[in-house]
Amino acid sequence: MTVVAPKVEKEEEQVVNPWEVSAGKGGIDYDKLVDQFGCQRLDAATIDRVARLTGRPPHRFLRRGLFFAHRDFNEILDLYEKGEKFYLYTGRGPSSEALHLGHLVPFMFTKYLQDAFKVPLVIQLTDDEKFLWKNLTVNESKRLARENAKDIIACGFDVEKTFIFSDFNFVGGAFYENMVKVARCVTYNKVVGIFGFSQEDHIGKISFPPVQAVPSFPSSFPHLFSGMEQLRCLIPCAIDQDPYFRMTRDVAPRIGCQKPSLTESRFFPALQVNKYAFSGGQDSAELQRELGANLEVDVPIKYLNFFLEDDHDLEQIKKGYGDGSLLTGKVKNLLGDVLYEVVKRHTRARAQVTEEMVDAFMAARPLPNMFG
Amino acid sequence: MTVVAPKVEKEEEQVVNPWEVSAGKGGIDYDKLVDQFGCQRLDAATIDRVARLTGRPPHRFLRRGLFFAHRDFNEILDLYEKGEKFYLYTGRGPSSEALHLGHLVPFMFTKYLQDAFKVPLVIQLTDDEKFLWKNLTVNESKRLARENAKDIIACGFDVEKTFIFSDFNFVGGAFYENMVKVARCVTYNKVVGIFGFSQEDHIGKISFPPVQAVPSFPSSFPHLFSGMEQLRCLIPCAIDQDPYFRMTRDVAPRIGCQKPSLTESRFFPALQVNKYAFSGGQDSAELQRELGANLEVDVPIKYLNFFLEDDHDLEQIKKGYGDGSLLTGKVKNLLGDVLYEVVKRHTRARAQVTEEMVDAFMAARPLPNMFG
Repeated sequence: MTVVAPKVEKEEEQVVNPWEVSAGKGGIDYDKLVDQFGCQRLDAATIDRVARLTGRPPHRFLRRGLFFAHRDFNEILDLYEKGEKFYLYTGRGPSSEALHLGHLVPFMFTKYLQDAFKVPLVIQLTDDEKFLWKNLTVNESKRLARENAKDIIACGFDVEKTFIFSDFNFVGGAFYENMVKVARCVTYNKVVGIFGFSQEDHIGKISFPPVQAVPSFPSSFPHLFSGMEQLRCLIPCAIDQDPYFRMTRDVAPRIGCQKPSLTESRFFPALQVNKYAFSGGQDSAELQRELGANLEVDVPIKYLNFFLEDDHDLEQIKKGYGDGSLLTGKVKNLLGDVLYEVVKRHTRARAQVTEEMVDAFMAARPLPNMFG
Repeated sequence: MTVVAPKVEKEEEQVVNPWEVSAGKGGIDYDKLVDQFGCQRLDAATIDRVARLTGRPPHRFLRRGLFFAHRDFNEILDLYEKGEKFYLYTGRGPSSEALHLGHLVPFMFTKYLQDAFKVPLVIQLTDDEKFLWKNLTVNESKRLARENAKDIIACGFDVEKTFIFSDFNFVGGAFYENMVKVARCVTYNKVVGIFGFSQEDHIGKISFPPVQAVPSFPSSFPHLFSGMEQLRCLIPCAIDQDPYFRMTRDVAPRIGCQKPSLTESRFFPALQVNKYAFSGGQDSAELQRELGANLEVDVPIKYLNFFLEDDHDLEQIKKGYGDGSLLTGKVKNLLGDVLYEVVKRHTRARAQVTEEMVDAFMAARPLPNMFG
């Protein structure tokens, strides 16, 4: 006799990797993610230290725990305290014509870090990745990279400290040498373990992780960091990119390089699967006045968390919305005003970005004032 | 009761791929290889046609069946007959300081093709491959590539028609774009089927086949073939390189490119595992006079096949050695004279190759006289 196990509704597991972010019931469990990935929590003492070392208030993304995890960020701060510098590396896969609000988050934070620490920045546009994963032509991927560069430049980066490059334009020379060095250190089994590729996947996907790894190494940019091959690198990114840099940190010492440090953010709400909840407000004004809103699942509150600069205003809104004295419609109106300002400011700045400015940021040139 | 099959001595199978050439008993079975790989035999009619079209006698490697197989070589000849041109692509993995005699074979044949058809030539030095497969540093691989370039230049290539490049120096731009395009068309399962990689192999190996594929496409060399993206390519190589170009020909139409054609050579004897036989001569002068030599397995005769230009002289030696009137020592002496001349000529030519000449051949420049 065969015993058949009764069918059980399986709890949906969260999946977080560079190509898929899917929450379990109740949203992303960030604590679980930190443990699973093996990164560290960004604590209040570290945030205070950033404020002290830079002589400016910590960014709201830090104050509010939106950048919430890190790897060896303290080592970067230790060195900085002793008068040493580092460089920043971040990036974007140019899959759409224009950046959305959520896409701006890492760049806003990166700009704050560049201004606060006065350090150079390299920004990688992975047009090759998007060609490999999406049904795009090479030329379309390159065009999107250039369009995305305009949005990024509009965030206010300093052209004297910032090098933006697309892989299709820049891969070669020392950068390619480092790609090959990294690839020699990573087995197929290893990338399957980290990224979950299958045997039916094309080898373009399997070849890609070293491309995103090597901007972590100053020797990939001889026009910037010649003679500074041991300069440390700090990578601000969303936590779904952590697998790339776990791999990078694993390989780094084996090829004579420093491990990059990371600061890692939560996901912008739009990136989560919001099938369980959007608004935390009650269904009617009467119920809302009586019960107040559930702030934990409320997307407008999450957006305000990201974009409303004033801490006091944010607290007032949360208090009123939570105790029922603020209605859902009013909160949405307030959010609308805040987003309108952010979008207006960005749209205006982007309209000022000329093709010549894009050329200037994307020229492989020395940055004479990069630590100034 | 369990039945155990009796242990049987298994006949050793021949293995031929870019990294391993191992003969079964009795040497490489080239007929089997042609059937297994699915290429075509190079017949007498095609060789006559080459002679007619080029107005010069076919190279001894053709006359003697040393280049014995091909893929679509006739299509190249059809086009050439109509007044169209093509380009040549060959290469070398720079794993040793200097080239050996056998390494010169494809280059000697390529030089003949360049002279006979008056066509441009690209030569790829896969220093990245050697870094990936051997325990070398990047700098050592690059140095060997440059040393090997000197041996190649010494074969007499025309600097006005020849571009030599090393991957570490040249990968980038349109070449990298084509690498990524090829990689998107080939699954992991597919490269395992073609090249026999294992899951413990590093991803550098898995990433490499597109690097050797893309010099087959003129668009990889915009400084040479801008506006000639449909120019056909002919690849002279040893037959162990066929797997790369099977893959390339499979992918080509899917990315809008022409399939490359190939002419494929037997292995130079040193590359075979000669555990079964070296000399076909008899053990004593008496036996040799009585029985004559077995020419089929005799390595000195194979070497003479490659390097003795005069057909009549070669026939005389074979006849005398086979019927016992020529002793083994005499044949070895004759071979010594021939090889001495080849090596002397090459050594002298190599001594004339300056660093400036290497720079000239390896500069990514237009070739203004490439079809002249």
